[in-house]
Amino acid sequence: MVAEIIAVGSELLSPYRTDTNSLELTERLMELGIRVNGKCVVGDNDEDIARAIRAAAARAQIIVITGGLGPTNDDKTREGIAKALKLNLVFREDIHTWIKERYKQLTKQDPPDNLARMAFVPEGAEILENTVGTAPGLWLEAKEGYLYIIALPGPPSEWRPMFERVREKLAQFGSHVFSHRILRIAGLRESQVEDKISQFYTGVKNPQVTILASPEDVQIHIWARAREREEADRLADEMKKKFLEVLKENVYTDKDEPLEKVVGDLLREKGKTLAVAESCSGGLLANRITNIPGSSDYFLMGAVTYSNEAKVKVLGVKKKDIEAHGAVSEPVAAQMAEGIRRVAGSDFGIGITGIAGPGGGTPEKPVGLVYIGISWEGGTEVKRFRFPGTRLQVKMYTTSSALDMLRRKLI
Amino acid sequence: MVAEIIAVGSELLSPYRTDTNSLELTERLMELGIRVNGKCVVGDNDEDIARAIRAAAARAQIIVITGGLGPTNDDKTREGIAKALKLNLVFREDIHTWIKERYKQLTKQDPPDNLARMAFVPEGAEILENTVGTAPGLWLEAKEGYLYIIALPGPPSEWRPMFERVREKLAQFGSHVFSHRILRIAGLRESQVEDKISQFYTGVKNPQVTILASPEDVQIHIWARAREREEADRLADEMKKKFLEVLKENVYTDKDEPLEKVVGDLLREKGKTLAVAESCSGGLLANRITNIPGSSDYFLMGAVTYSNEAKVKVLGVKKKDIEAHGAVSEPVAAQMAEGIRRVAGSDFGIGITGIAGPGGGTPEKPVGLVYIGISWEGGTEVKRFRFPGTRLQVKMYTTSSALDMLRRKLI
Repeated sequence: MVAEIIAVGSELLSPYRTDTNSLELTERLMELGIRVNGKCVVGDNDEDIARAIRAAAARAQIIVITGGLGPTNDDKTREGIAKALKLNLVFREDIHTWIKERYKQLTKQDPPDNLARMAFVPEGAEILENTVGTAPGLWLEAKEGYLYIIALPGPPSEWRPMFERVREKLAQFGSHVFSHRILRIAGLRESQVEDKISQFYTGVKNPQVTILASPEDVQIHIWARAREREEADRLADEMKKKFLEVLKENVYTDKDEPLEKVVGDLLREKGKTLAVAESCSGGLLANRITNIPGSSDYFLMGAVTYSNEAKVKVLGVKKKDIEAHGAVSEPVAAQMAEGIRRVAGSDFGIGITGIAGPGGGTPEKPVGLVYIGISWEGGTEVKRFRFPGTRLQVKMYTTSSALDMLRRKLI
Repeated sequence: MVAEIIAVGSELLSPYRTDTNSLELTERLMELGIRVNGKCVVGDNDEDIARAIRAAAARAQIIVITGGLGPTNDDKTREGIAKALKLNLVFREDIHTWIKERYKQLTKQDPPDNLARMAFVPEGAEILENTVGTAPGLWLEAKEGYLYIIALPGPPSEWRPMFERVREKLAQFGSHVFSHRILRIAGLRESQVEDKISQFYTGVKNPQVTILASPEDVQIHIWARAREREEADRLADEMKKKFLEVLKENVYTDKDEPLEKVVGDLLREKGKTLAVAESCSGGLLANRITNIPGSSDYFLMGAVTYSNEAKVKVLGVKKKDIEAHGAVSEPVAAQMAEGIRRVAGSDFGIGITGIAGPGGGTPEKPVGLVYIGISWEGGTEVKRFRFPGTRLQVKMYTTSSALDMLRRKLI
């Protein structure tokens, strides 16, 4: 089964907004064994919507449309579907009643007249109940069952619950189901991950393996296909097991969760606390750690000691070491980690000093050079890194490496 | 003139990647008076590419295609164009020579055989030189001049310089030019901005005005259309002037630059320094400030005092005030601002305390309640805010409000 996705909305054709619904929809369709073959964005115009539907119908059995289902004159998806399939729009009293009830329930006010527009639907359409807003979704079987059109509201909060019903209905079509596994890796570069695992998946068509690298981490996505869920799960898990055997503790999670969440869970589990002192990462490490709800359980404090004075005064870094080795140096990273641990009274201290760029680099200390220190009751360890990329990329690489150093101490 | 954009690449149909080239291309086409009517993503398949081109040609005079121009077997854009327009692919010796030279120049190595694929182009195509990589772009006039196809490489670093040549060639088509103005606003909500300016643009078709709101700021985009650049500029500037007259100092910039850049420039200009103490924003303020290259000129230090102990020990917040008023309170915000200013020896100190959520709220102190203090030689001021949204949105609202409080002190 092949699907196409159409996002409706003139705002999605501006330079400022883009369709993101289709990414999540693609993932959900893939899980049902349905491949997305193309996607389009069209404006709030029934002719354009109809043309996009006709074009998609030429190559797909399932068309998922998002947006354009509201009550205003700009909402043209119902008209577009009717035009594309040469169907009449019929006024459905049952839908009108439902919409009015829903509106009263949500707003405690009398429903305005324009809600009636949402009760004009292409003949034969079935309603998908909206448990969050008032605009119902549509399910339409066309061309004697060779084409299914699913129209969903634009806001994810509205279409996500509605998709449960869609999933039930679509489940019967997928001749295959897909199982998805993810491994997220820290401490190895993309090429190092590839070197270790390519032996297992080169030339293999099922499961499909995709490696995605960013300054945050390296991710492996495994998609296995089979007629039955059990078989797809088995294929995916087999591949995942092979990868885990060679990647070992470099895999920090097999869930879709960030490193700061994993490290936070480890700290909480072991009853340990953390404080961080940052120079070149400028607060990004503290920011990532505190993005996780409940991080106050284990995160005591951060210091962004950008100036040398702050390093000396707040963290007790020795002035003579800054003078002798420079602020970007191993002894300074170590003393920052030890200093913040002492000041905060935490179990672990992290100290970061480096050159994020684009300015400030020298031949001896180039842009991207970063020292990360970690201090705990057993001592202090410093690692030297050289990260590529822009200022923001260097900041991201730095903080992921710091979190990973701590993770390895905790496991 | 109407354009459609086609992004080619199977990876852009996965749940993990999305086409972003089209946003920047849309802006550039709009500047040339060319409206984007639709956009599509298709996989690396010449049939799909050809179908998308034929569909787009039915409603656009200009089709911009990105991706699929490289030397591998997956690069199918040349084949797709030829198929859509029923043109032959011809081997062009001149292009082959250019590509080989370019390859040698870039890599200092002998060119591999597969580069020859890039010299097979649809007959009649003109080459757009690639000043960064080896894959040339294509410019093709079809249907007796009623259709123009522009094929660009996928990577922005390659197509951006190439677009200069495209711009020259397209400039002749645009019957209109567009002028774009931006105003970025802090300290007002979207509805407040709208109340002030809607009188000027309601019912006005030219310029078009769009208001975009996010936890970071509120942006007004003005697009004016005219036959001549001068007239478009005049229309846009007139509207901008009206907006500025009512929005006044709430507009922090009329350039596309973030608040942390504007505040940083003001600090540098006035020779002032800054230090920040954060609780609920967890380092995001320091992180935003240090995302700006050269921020070490004015940013001395940040402290993320998540625990009460850190607030007392590092910043000298009075324990009895935390006990009497709670950590999220006006006196604590004031003392955090004063404390960090004293510790860092900076001209300005900012103190932030609040409840980012989702947990930790009470009826008296709900999620989203934030106190922001600012301390300078003239005294200390604290403001109370109540921000909506998720944890990350509250963090973003908080830091933008803090930067804006400082900006108003500096202007």
